[in-house]
Amino acid sequence: MNIAVAQSGGPTAAINSSLCGVFDEAEKYNEIDRIYGSLNGIEGILNDNLIDLKEVLITENDKQLLKRTPSTVLGSCRFKLKNSSDDDSDYKRITQNFAKHNIKAFFYIGGNDSMDTVMKLDAYFRENHIDIKVVGVPKTIDNDLPLTDHTPGFGSAAKYVATTLQEIIRDSRVYSIPSVTIVEIMGRDAGWLTASSCVLRANGEPAPHLIYLPESDFSEEHYLEDVKRISERYKAVIVAVSEGIDCLASRSEATDAFGHKYLSGVGKYLEELTRDHIGCKVRSIELNVMQRCGSHIASLTDLDEAWRIGAAAVNEALKYGGSGVMMGFRRISNNPYRVGIAPLDVRECANKAKYFPKEWITPEGNNVTIDALNYFLPLIQGEPKIDYLNGIPVHFRLDQ
Amino acid sequence: MNIAVAQSGGPTAAINSSLCGVFDEAEKYNEIDRIYGSLNGIEGILNDNLIDLKEVLITENDKQLLKRTPSTVLGSCRFKLKNSSDDDSDYKRITQNFAKHNIKAFFYIGGNDSMDTVMKLDAYFRENHIDIKVVGVPKTIDNDLPLTDHTPGFGSAAKYVATTLQEIIRDSRVYSIPSVTIVEIMGRDAGWLTASSCVLRANGEPAPHLIYLPESDFSEEHYLEDVKRISERYKAVIVAVSEGIDCLASRSEATDAFGHKYLSGVGKYLEELTRDHIGCKVRSIELNVMQRCGSHIASLTDLDEAWRIGAAAVNEALKYGGSGVMMGFRRISNNPYRVGIAPLDVRECANKAKYFPKEWITPEGNNVTIDALNYFLPLIQGEPKIDYLNGIPVHFRLDQ
Repeated sequence: MNIAVAQSGGPTAAINSSLCGVFDEAEKYNEIDRIYGSLNGIEGILNDNLIDLKEVLITENDKQLLKRTPSTVLGSCRFKLKNSSDDDSDYKRITQNFAKHNIKAFFYIGGNDSMDTVMKLDAYFRENHIDIKVVGVPKTIDNDLPLTDHTPGFGSAAKYVATTLQEIIRDSRVYSIPSVTIVEIMGRDAGWLTASSCVLRANGEPAPHLIYLPESDFSEEHYLEDVKRISERYKAVIVAVSEGIDCLASRSEATDAFGHKYLSGVGKYLEELTRDHIGCKVRSIELNVMQRCGSHIASLTDLDEAWRIGAAAVNEALKYGGSGVMMGFRRISNNPYRVGIAPLDVRECANKAKYFPKEWITPEGNNVTIDALNYFLPLIQGEPKIDYLNGIPVHFRLDQ
Repeated sequence: MNIAVAQSGGPTAAINSSLCGVFDEAEKYNEIDRIYGSLNGIEGILNDNLIDLKEVLITENDKQLLKRTPSTVLGSCRFKLKNSSDDDSDYKRITQNFAKHNIKAFFYIGGNDSMDTVMKLDAYFRENHIDIKVVGVPKTIDNDLPLTDHTPGFGSAAKYVATTLQEIIRDSRVYSIPSVTIVEIMGRDAGWLTASSCVLRANGEPAPHLIYLPESDFSEEHYLEDVKRISERYKAVIVAVSEGIDCLASRSEATDAFGHKYLSGVGKYLEELTRDHIGCKVRSIELNVMQRCGSHIASLTDLDEAWRIGAAAVNEALKYGGSGVMMGFRRISNNPYRVGIAPLDVRECANKAKYFPKEWITPEGNNVTIDALNYFLPLIQGEPKIDYLNGIPVHFRLDQ
């Protein structure tokens, strides 16, 4: 028998480590012959676009490099399966291609949308008495998948954000004049990554002084009051803000005074608001895609866990016969930090989001509590050994 | 006798290493009692705002941390001395404060503007027979100081750009649809840092496929042709562009079709141009201040050289009696990479810029040659050992 694995959704620094986990664990099973990688997620299954991973991951070094390479080496997709009751043509093609290659288990590494695919495929196979296991492996820098304590990819993104934010803080403090620096962090619906910027407190850093999340109500008036109050104490005010806070800039229908659509993000919007009302030196910074692919400053804890959860998915399907599940983390303790891995019913995970807890947001809605800090801190620990060639981190590449 | 050191201009990852070089070397001189740090550049001398560096840099660990901490620990300024013939009041205050603290040598770590201060102060002291040595220590991520082979801070910025760009390249390639990613890199007048993105070629990476510098003529028409041609071969086109290329967005008087001033940068401008004329998925990314303060991915060569040139400045003033000079690098060989340090007449350096050589730009004006690669590569070699606490790099901090 053979198995297949695919990656989907937005890139992270840990998604290739999960792929390695699937690969390494599958190699231990004598009954598994080929380990297929599906190119561009489920599209690769639909289009019969598979590669034999044993032909590309040959040496131990290949795998070590791949673990430390950001983004999806197999490519990704944003493909949503139709309901099979409406149109089962894609399901039939998938089934045919799985049969053609004798694929008996499929591992899908992805976020909310990918878990929808896992759920639908598993349901279709069950209904039609097709014995193919489908197991989801979570990943998302948004950390917004339900039931799991956290998601692979998040810890590395949080470590990138903390490291970079600390450097921005140093940068912002050099001049003697007052300033406000607004750092826009990814998270359209869930504020986990923005909230994680609080970890700098563990090292005695008071910034970011203000943290705004989509989960709390945002008001321009309170924001400006907050900034004014903080600037009385700190020369260089640092604001961490989720791209998804509810304001003019995040509403797609919003237009400016001239009737033009807002093209810039929340950071730029707050920059202009601050400049107009406070008038000091203001800068906004978007961490952009760098925060999701910053492998050179990845969290070793995250990469290791990503590998482990990929490996656990293989055991779930092959050893325990599990299907229609997403593997998840359960936090056993914070000190020492320990997590267990267990299968979760994918129907409870797909198309649902886990928001940052309201009780971890301060009453003023402009910062997070110590509980948040304690939750985040274990996830960013440890640094992988990076191989450099010519002074540049070495990435594993399949093609150009 | 005492000495003073100050930092000026925009932050870099190496400017604190030069400060350590000055400090460490000065400590070896028995005749030097106090080593003053002037807060916010020359403003600290004017306002008598000095700290005794021996009281804050106490342990070897303090100095090791400071070397690896980005930005200017003493703060910075953008202060330009008037000509003493027009108004010598600031010169008198500086002289008084130097006399008050028995400061006999002043080391100014900075870029073009700071060298102007070195030049003017030295000239004033000579004219007035005041025996105070003034020595400039170069720093700028722009690499645009004349006569020196390169400047401290540049190598680390280049390493940050290469590392980050490579991660952006990985990120850009995940989807099956064609895309163009435009990365805007600092350099208002000189394209050195943008050009340095060519180092990825040393590791077989064909991207960035297009590199546009302020030193070559930019035309929208050629740009669009370039992108179209590259996109026939590469699914994910990567463009590296200097913030200072000559286009509508970089001209401060430019307005859009509605008569509004352009507020966004060159990257955003090219993004819209590309979307309007090519129509594929387009993203623009600004590396913003992160590229100048990315200590966690600093070049060890850069940090070591920054230390050495700071130390050499002390010897120049104390051992050789030099003044009115900027210390500079002379490249002895590329393979093995060797540089010497020598004093340069600051009058030849101040208020002048060194542009990226025209002969290192390809005839099409959209890339750089192998000579550029050979020049850049030695500057990004080596990685400093970073101390982590709670998963976050440890910075040396003077205050909050």
